[in-house]
Amino acid sequence: MTKKIAVLAGDGIGPEIVAEAVKVLNAFKQDGLDIELEYGLIGGAAYDETGSPLPEETLQMAKQADAILLGAVGGYKWESLDISVRPEKGLLGIRSQLNLFANLRPALLYPQLADASTLKPEVVSGLDLMIVRELTGGIYFGQPRGIRILENGEKEGYNTLVYRESEINRIGRVAFDIARKRQSRVCSVDKANVLECTELWRETMTALSKDYADVELSHMYVDNAAMQLVRAPKQFDVMVTTNMFGDILSDCASMLTGSIGMLPSASLDENGKGMYEPIHGSAPDIAGQNIANPLATILSAAMMLRYTLDQPAFADRIESAVSKVLDQGLRTADIFSAGMTRVTTAEMGDAVVAAL
Amino acid sequence: MTKKIAVLAGDGIGPEIVAEAVKVLNAFKQDGLDIELEYGLIGGAAYDETGSPLPEETLQMAKQADAILLGAVGGYKWESLDISVRPEKGLLGIRSQLNLFANLRPALLYPQLADASTLKPEVVSGLDLMIVRELTGGIYFGQPRGIRILENGEKEGYNTLVYRESEINRIGRVAFDIARKRQSRVCSVDKANVLECTELWRETMTALSKDYADVELSHMYVDNAAMQLVRAPKQFDVMVTTNMFGDILSDCASMLTGSIGMLPSASLDENGKGMYEPIHGSAPDIAGQNIANPLATILSAAMMLRYTLDQPAFADRIESAVSKVLDQGLRTADIFSAGMTRVTTAEMGDAVVAAL
Ligand SMILES: CC(C)[C@H](C(=O)O)[C@@H](O)C(=O)O
Ligand SMILES: CC(C)[C@H](C(=O)O)[C@@H](O)C(=O)O
Repeated sequence: MTKKIAVLAGDGIGPEIVAEAVKVLNAFKQDGLDIELEYGLIGGAAYDETGSPLPEETLQMAKQADAILLGAVGGYKWESLDISVRPEKGLLGIRSQLNLFANLRPALLYPQLADASTLKPEVVSGLDLMIVRELTGGIYFGQPRGIRILENGEKEGYNTLVYRESEINRIGRVAFDIARKRQSRVCSVDKANVLECTELWRETMTALSKDYADVELSHMYVDNAAMQLVRAPKQFDVMVTTNMFGDILSDCASMLTGSIGMLPSASLDENGKGMYEPIHGSAPDIAGQNIANPLATILSAAMMLRYTLDQPAFADRIESAVSKVLDQGLRTADIFSAGMTRVTTAEMGDAVVAAL
Repeated sequence: MTKKIAVLAGDGIGPEIVAEAVKVLNAFKQDGLDIELEYGLIGGAAYDETGSPLPEETLQMAKQADAILLGAVGGYKWESLDISVRPEKGLLGIRSQLNLFANLRPALLYPQLADASTLKPEVVSGLDLMIVRELTGGIYFGQPRGIRILENGEKEGYNTLVYRESEINRIGRVAFDIARKRQSRVCSVDKANVLECTELWRETMTALSKDYADVELSHMYVDNAAMQLVRAPKQFDVMVTTNMFGDILSDCASMLTGSIGMLPSASLDENGKGMYEPIHGSAPDIAGQNIANPLATILSAAMMLRYTLDQPAFADRIESAVSKVLDQGLRTADIFSAGMTRVTTAEMGDAVVAAL
């Protein structure tokens, strides 16, 4: 049966990088990949056109699709908008409306790009860690929230961090299941010494670990986790944490690799349906210049083939092709180094297609 | 007039490292430093003795003192206690009861220890950034908080992130004032694209910056800040942020230097009264072995002399003495490297006293 993929390019470099991933997916059609792509507006682009960062039409398209390929949202242009209509709300809306609670963010060092890390080679060589971030709860979505005026006339802003056991169990299981296919170690990150909400997080993870006797569970406070990522990132296999902590730690972790332009991510619901997007942002400063690195988005398409479309062979072909173009010395500006061949966004996409 | 200093050694390596800082302070008495030290219990040590991590007697002593010297609190031993009596509550209690809202956390690379960083030398050499963390508000102290049972029987944990304009202005002013004595650049870190509370933070900082036309204010989302700290930490001069974000970012920043055993911190109220403590924790795994690095605590005493006791000359002498012992090649285990002389906690303290 034909699988529907909603393609939401978004803002900044989004359209350019998504176009290259689409090239790669389309190249598989002749080999029997039965997909149909539909295009929708999201983020600032959607706001400019419709007044909403997540138009109803896009939401319906995303709901009906089997998988979603997303570019990136946001940019300076929309930073002064009210928070309720910012581009980011489009992304948060899809995550929440589609129940994409499990965000998988690998931090992987590509041996061909080992030099790009700001960390010493011995600290990061071979780095391969997976951050599992809860994506539809926590302080991102907790109620009540807002800005109120106090009696003395001053403003007060407030947000609510909230997790219930079932949400913690659900994301915990994803982390434990992934760990089983890796090195069977899960580090749960919280601030249980200060925040009651994450005290419950820790207790719940500990109770859940009884179902996974073969996986080693450890706990770490978030401040220590941020330090340990810098000190000795290879100590980690799978990290699981809240929405907010995961936002911070996964960006830190991906930057350790020096190849943030290379890292894909998946956001999954309970049935394996998912949204796939690069970890990096919309990079408005380089938008439209045909210099952005499309590999993270191309690798996101590979993740989609693996996790949602059940086409591991096609996923493998993309991943090997990416490795091949790196071996060939092709580099976009962000990963360029002396002796390599500098290519544009489109040239990189073409090279991957040629190497499939 | 005699200045009273409350000495709260706390847990783990706390007593050992504080003892060395006390040695250094006492050495100044013969040169006319008029101080009187009083000792109090805090943290796990206080809990074990009195059932409270912050006994009333300690709180009164801290309130009446001119300054407080703290070791560290916490440890595995107390991790299963209820959150309300954990050692950390002692620290949080003092911060809050004494209104120590401004936490200054320098991240400084000591040239003698440049090798200790996990980052490449060119990325961190000369690193000197100051993180100003709000310390008595935000999600650490917001109400309501707790764990409740839902109708369906499952538990739900919740905490509240809250800031009002006056709190943001107060910490903002500290950051701007410090920036004026440095490179006149403040980067305010928030998550204004998602959290209304930090949207108010950003607006308030922007409004406040009108009073500091000579200081350059920029804004950064917290996830990006965590990445930028790893990518190019030298871009920052002063960073100012919320209690929770500051907890995470300051630990990350201090680890970049590779010399976390060297970094002091100050927590100040509106009148310059303060609590001084090393950035590192209680390190229960090495407690009692006379191998911990006392330099962060000794440098915290220097900060105390500078910021609260108005004795910059004594502060200078400590800082030069620390530089001297490093030049002499003396190293505790945490900063040891080939060719250096390994010393114990007490030997390091003695060496600093000798070098004053
Ligand atoms: C754009 C923003 C809302 C988003 C987030 O905070 O989750 C982004 O930083 C991410 O990590 O996907
Ligand atoms: C011990 C703990 C409560 C404390 C905090 O979270 O503030 C510590 O991590 C710190 O940064 O001083």
